[in-house]
Amino acid sequence: MKIMSVNSGSSSIKFKLFEMPSEKVIASGQVDKIGFEDAGFEIEFNGKEFEKTLPIKSHTLGAQLIINGLIEHKIVKDMKEIAAVGHRIVQGGEVFKEHTIVDDKVLQQILDLADMAPLHNKAHVISIKAFREVLPNVPHTVVFDTVFHSTMKEDAFMYAVPYFWYTDHGIRKYGFHGTSHKYVSELTNKILGNKKDSKVIVCHIGNGASISAVRNGVCVDTSMGFTPLDGIPMGTRTGAIDPAILNYIGEKLNLSSAEVYEILNKKSGYLGISGVTSDARELEQSIAEGNKRSKLAFDLQAKRIADYIGSYYVYMEGVDAITFTAGIGANSPRLRKLVCDRLKALGVKIDDKLNEAKAQEISTKDSKVRVFVINTNEEVVIARETLKLIKRKA
Amino acid sequence: MKIMSVNSGSSSIKFKLFEMPSEKVIASGQVDKIGFEDAGFEIEFNGKEFEKTLPIKSHTLGAQLIINGLIEHKIVKDMKEIAAVGHRIVQGGEVFKEHTIVDDKVLQQILDLADMAPLHNKAHVISIKAFREVLPNVPHTVVFDTVFHSTMKEDAFMYAVPYFWYTDHGIRKYGFHGTSHKYVSELTNKILGNKKDSKVIVCHIGNGASISAVRNGVCVDTSMGFTPLDGIPMGTRTGAIDPAILNYIGEKLNLSSAEVYEILNKKSGYLGISGVTSDARELEQSIAEGNKRSKLAFDLQAKRIADYIGSYYVYMEGVDAITFTAGIGANSPRLRKLVCDRLKALGVKIDDKLNEAKAQEISTKDSKVRVFVINTNEEVVIARETLKLIKRKA
Repeated sequence: MKIMSVNSGSSSIKFKLFEMPSEKVIASGQVDKIGFEDAGFEIEFNGKEFEKTLPIKSHTLGAQLIINGLIEHKIVKDMKEIAAVGHRIVQGGEVFKEHTIVDDKVLQQILDLADMAPLHNKAHVISIKAFREVLPNVPHTVVFDTVFHSTMKEDAFMYAVPYFWYTDHGIRKYGFHGTSHKYVSELTNKILGNKKDSKVIVCHIGNGASISAVRNGVCVDTSMGFTPLDGIPMGTRTGAIDPAILNYIGEKLNLSSAEVYEILNKKSGYLGISGVTSDARELEQSIAEGNKRSKLAFDLQAKRIADYIGSYYVYMEGVDAITFTAGIGANSPRLRKLVCDRLKALGVKIDDKLNEAKAQEISTKDSKVRVFVINTNEEVVIARETLKLIKRKA
Repeated sequence: MKIMSVNSGSSSIKFKLFEMPSEKVIASGQVDKIGFEDAGFEIEFNGKEFEKTLPIKSHTLGAQLIINGLIEHKIVKDMKEIAAVGHRIVQGGEVFKEHTIVDDKVLQQILDLADMAPLHNKAHVISIKAFREVLPNVPHTVVFDTVFHSTMKEDAFMYAVPYFWYTDHGIRKYGFHGTSHKYVSELTNKILGNKKDSKVIVCHIGNGASISAVRNGVCVDTSMGFTPLDGIPMGTRTGAIDPAILNYIGEKLNLSSAEVYEILNKKSGYLGISGVTSDARELEQSIAEGNKRSKLAFDLQAKRIADYIGSYYVYMEGVDAITFTAGIGANSPRLRKLVCDRLKALGVKIDDKLNEAKAQEISTKDSKVRVFVINTNEEVVIARETLKLIKRKA
């Protein structure tokens, strides 16, 4: 059975086609710069890659292009072979505590949540509508970033703001990157031999970054909050800062609150501190060239990651494993070392050679906590959840 | 030698007169509601207390009243007996890494920092000027809340915001309650036998609340930040929240950013969550009556305190002692228990009876971390620092 995972933004669609339940990737690719004359379409299968540049006016045309590409390259005979399409959604609020099959009501509910994720939810809905037009006879599902975190208890998800901000306006911690935290924590638990009462901390460090505390497979806390701005410093985001800074700097620099918010999201983090780049590889290069502010950018992030690990060690009453994932977590031995060197109190020891070599397990044999590096795979979680949903429906 | 400690707000002056270096309190008292017709003056000495209500138009008249009161009640023969006056200052920025003797330049520097502590620094300067008028021939000193925290390193004090926000506008973590953290950590170190490389966490939990990590007597991290809004939830303050909440709720409720900031400072924390009170004793009563939101308010604070303790355990590479202080920390066995019950991973165990009885040491003999309850004494730190400064000058 073939299931497609779709991850759409306001001008892009990424897809992966899986044979399920074997989870073999049959094809993958993307459409980007939707709405532009020089939009692109890429498809990859059997080790071959095809690319073209053409105007792609809408998500519907993008979706059409993807399906046609699959047929044209004989990856599928006709569109009936695609059993279901799973769509990633960033913000499910408190409405969606489970992933679900799409209908018109579900689409409206996702739109109703768009206020809380303006950059994402609207684009998601446009993309789902496009795929439903192109593949009208297959079930579409929605898999939410927030669902994995919906198991957090009140003491972890509430902010100490006026209570009606929560009840009437949904102000609480939702957490994000949930499908990644789920995939990585499940795999970590498997490596741990599915031990009872396992305590895992996942460090998803990409351009966006979040940490989660997963006890016995269930998320109990996470660093991102009401939005993906909260938590640790990232490529261009501040993470948590004193909220009083917003008004202060707004007045000093004569900026509107929307402008300040934009800077906290897009001009801060690595970029703000280093003044050079938001890209971790470029940051490392700049550190190698002796740039002290670039070094500080990495140090600030490492400090805050270690802070969260300490908090979660206390909250879970221990930790069995810490797993690094995502673009930087999986590919920067320097960041992993910076973090782990700060964890002496927890008895964390890593082997520098294993760390440099990106071994799956980088801790030494006498480390009190096992440390892993795992490539995340959000697409396969979407395919798995989609398979579960259509089986349940059948 | 008699030294007076003064702590002034916009409409109040609190004072304590010490015999130094014995640190015996000779008299204490306060002037409040300055600027009102029904202002008050209180003075206490030798177990006696005098109170009167009268109009007090200005801080200068308040200061005059205090000095006259001391003479009238024969606590001092004349004002020449007062060797020095030490004034508490909330915000010393990066300008003041040390306490200092007041001159006109110092006063101007304190005023220059008023932007960062608008409620405090201006009132402090008005009060210092008043006391200098009344006691023109004695040295006046300023003792800053922020000085004790000025030893934090870059990784602890920097926010991941655009770098020039720090260099040009002073956006960094300063920390507050420094004189309290200093007093309490010094006393804790004394109880620990002045052990080498001591690691102490101080939980100053009053209506304002902050945690600090003190290694070998030196502050290395603290929970309050650029302003006293950062960190853990307090009586009426949120502590750290996702900065994205500010714009979101401002738009939803049609509030200016100044109005949102006011709510985060004055209508949040215990008060916001419980909907009942910002007062810890009233909160406990409300919990006893079965109010779940009041219970949640305490739980949220306890969770965040435990989070910081976990972070500081990691950052200091261990912890020898945790000390509770200030109005709630020293007087609420419930809060202490809520926090300590969350610290099993650190091997913290307290004795419920000792906790209820407010013993100085409330941990059990087999607790891996010693837990203390100490009444803070910011005034005596001000007197001590003042004595040091005038001795150095002499």
